[in-house]
Amino acid sequence: MLGVYKYMDKIKVGIVGMGNLGKGVMYALKQNPDLELIALFTRREPSTVNTVYPVKVDSVNNIAEYVGKIDVMILCGGSATDLPEQTPQIMKLFNCVDSFDTHAKIPLHFANVDKVGKENSTLGIISVGWDPGLFSIARILFSSFASEGNDYTFWGKGVSQGHSDAIRRIKGVANAIQYTVPKEDALNAVRSGSNPKLSVREKHERVCYVVAKDGADRASIERQIKEMPNYFSDYDTTVNFISSEELKANHSKMPHGGSVIRSSKSADGNAFLTELNIKLDSNPEFTGGVLVAYARAVARMRKEGVTGAVTAFDIAPKYLFPADFDWQRAHML
Amino acid sequence: MLGVYKYMDKIKVGIVGMGNLGKGVMYALKQNPDLELIALFTRREPSTVNTVYPVKVDSVNNIAEYVGKIDVMILCGGSATDLPEQTPQIMKLFNCVDSFDTHAKIPLHFANVDKVGKENSTLGIISVGWDPGLFSIARILFSSFASEGNDYTFWGKGVSQGHSDAIRRIKGVANAIQYTVPKEDALNAVRSGSNPKLSVREKHERVCYVVAKDGADRASIERQIKEMPNYFSDYDTTVNFISSEELKANHSKMPHGGSVIRSSKSADGNAFLTELNIKLDSNPEFTGGVLVAYARAVARMRKEGVTGAVTAFDIAPKYLFPADFDWQRAHML
Repeated sequence: MLGVYKYMDKIKVGIVGMGNLGKGVMYALKQNPDLELIALFTRREPSTVNTVYPVKVDSVNNIAEYVGKIDVMILCGGSATDLPEQTPQIMKLFNCVDSFDTHAKIPLHFANVDKVGKENSTLGIISVGWDPGLFSIARILFSSFASEGNDYTFWGKGVSQGHSDAIRRIKGVANAIQYTVPKEDALNAVRSGSNPKLSVREKHERVCYVVAKDGADRASIERQIKEMPNYFSDYDTTVNFISSEELKANHSKMPHGGSVIRSSKSADGNAFLTELNIKLDSNPEFTGGVLVAYARAVARMRKEGVTGAVTAFDIAPKYLFPADFDWQRAHML
Repeated sequence: MLGVYKYMDKIKVGIVGMGNLGKGVMYALKQNPDLELIALFTRREPSTVNTVYPVKVDSVNNIAEYVGKIDVMILCGGSATDLPEQTPQIMKLFNCVDSFDTHAKIPLHFANVDKVGKENSTLGIISVGWDPGLFSIARILFSSFASEGNDYTFWGKGVSQGHSDAIRRIKGVANAIQYTVPKEDALNAVRSGSNPKLSVREKHERVCYVVAKDGADRASIERQIKEMPNYFSDYDTTVNFISSEELKANHSKMPHGGSVIRSSKSADGNAFLTELNIKLDSNPEFTGGVLVAYARAVARMRKEGVTGAVTAFDIAPKYLFPADFDWQRAHML
C-alpha cells in the first residue's frame, strides 16, 4: 500500500518495556514509516537491554526529559501489575496507548486514565490489541447490524501464557507450554446457525507440552495439571511429555488466533452469520501492529482536541490508517 | 441483548422508498425499539404501497411537512439514478442515511452531500451497507493493523441483480436469476497464505437459472449469455434452463455473502491471516439492519454538532450500538 499515497503526519513515539510485546511494536514500526521511534524506556539497566533494531535505550526514570520530543508512548507492560500504575503515571506527561486486557477491571482503569488525561490535557487509548480490540469491534459491529442473535468467541489455537505458567509451578516440571484449542464440533455447530448452548468444556480443549525434571513423577504431574481448578479441571486436557530440545524446536513461537461469530436472524426469520477469524503466527507481533495503528489514532485525535481516556469503541476507522481521509474514501471504501 | 441495558435516546426516523431495501429497514426497525418509524415516503400513489407492517405512507412531495418530527431519513432508492439526486435534495431538510454503492462515484456523491449538509446544518452518512460498509471497515482495520500484505474480497454465493437483469434483456428469456459464486480453490489458496495473483476468472464463477419462453432458441440464449462482454465473457458461466415454477420455488430469496481476507506478515517474517465472512439468507434485510444502526449514529453525532457528509470510516463503533457508552465499555469490550 505504501507508495500509492502520502501519509498525513510524522508521529514521534516511544516504547515503554522491551518484552515480547515491545519487540512486536518495534517490528510493526519498521512497516509504518509515518511513525518514528525516538527511544525505548526500561526499568532495567539500559545497557543490558537487547532491542531488535538499534534504538536509543533510556531509563524510565528519565522519561520526563522527553516531553515535547515524543507525541505518543506505547506501553508494553503487563496488565496484572504494570499498566494499572504505569498508564495513569505516564499520562501526566504523554499521550499513551496500552493493551490492558483484564476485562473485569476495564471500567476502573478507564476512570483512572480519563481523570489524569483530562487534568493534564493528554489522550490515552486503553485496552487495544486483538481481544480486547479487534474482537471487541467485531462484537459491537455484528450486534449493532443484526440485533437478534447470539455471540460466540473462540480463542486459539494459541499459547496461553497464564496456563503455561501454572504448569511450570508444579513440582518436577522444568518447562511447559499450553495451547488453547477451539473444538471443531463447537465451531461447526455455531456456523450451522443452530445457536447451540455450549459449556466451557464443549468450546475449547487444552493441550500441554511438558518437560519433566529427571526422576520426576510424571503420573503425578499429569494428574495435578488435569485437576487444577479454574485452569484445567473444567476442560478436556491432554498432557504430552517431551524433551527440552523438542520444546525449543517446536514450541518456541507464540501463535494465536480465534473467531468472533454472531448467529442472528431478521424479524422476517432470515438467518445471518457474521464471522471474524484471525490466525497469527506471532501473537505479540500482530498485537504490536494494532498498538502502532492506535498510536497513530491517538496522535491525530489529540490534535483535534480530544483528551482523557478512550477505547477501541471511540475510534473512527479513518484515524487508524496512514493515508489522508480523502484518499481512504476514494480508494478503500 | 435488549432488556439488559437501557437505550440512550428515542430516535424518530422516516423511510424513503419501499422496495426490497425499504422492507428490510422496516424489519430491522422492529428489532430496534430505540428507533421509531414515523412515516414512509413514496413517489407512487401512497394508497397503492404495501408495507410489511402498518405505518403511515405519504407522498415524498409532502416530506417538508415532517421537519421537526423526524430526526433521520433512511433513503432506500437505487444508486444509479435515485440517490445522486435524492440524498442532496433531502439533506436540505433532514439528516440522512443512504447506501450509495457505485464505488467510483463516491467522492463526487460525498462532495455533493457534504456541501448541502454544511449549508443546512444536517448530517448525512453515505454508502453504508455491507460493501461498501462492513467490508470497507474490515479492509481498513486489517490494513491498519497489518501493514504489509494483500487484500482479497470475494462476493457470494449470492444473487446479482445487475447480472440477472442483463440475462432478462435477451430475446426469448422470460425470467432469470444469476448467482455469483466464489471459487473454493481461490479461497483456499488465499487462506494458505501463498498470496496468489488471481484473475477475474479464477476468483468467481457465475451460475444462471433461466426460464425460456415457449419455442425460444435455448442454445442461442446460452451462447449470448456466455459471450456477453463485461458481465459474463471473463467468467466460467453455467446456464441452467428451468421452469417458471422452479424459479419461483427455489430462487425467490435474495441470499448473499462474501469474504474480506488479508494475508500479511510482520517485519520478522511471521504470517497473519485476518478474515471477515458473512452469509446472509436475505441481502436486503441485513443491509436494512446496517442502515438502521447508522441512522442511530447519525442522530447521536448530529446532537454532538457534526454536520456535512460522513462515511463508515468516520463513525466510531460506540455510536452504532443502542446502549450507553459506559455500559458498552463494561460489557462488550
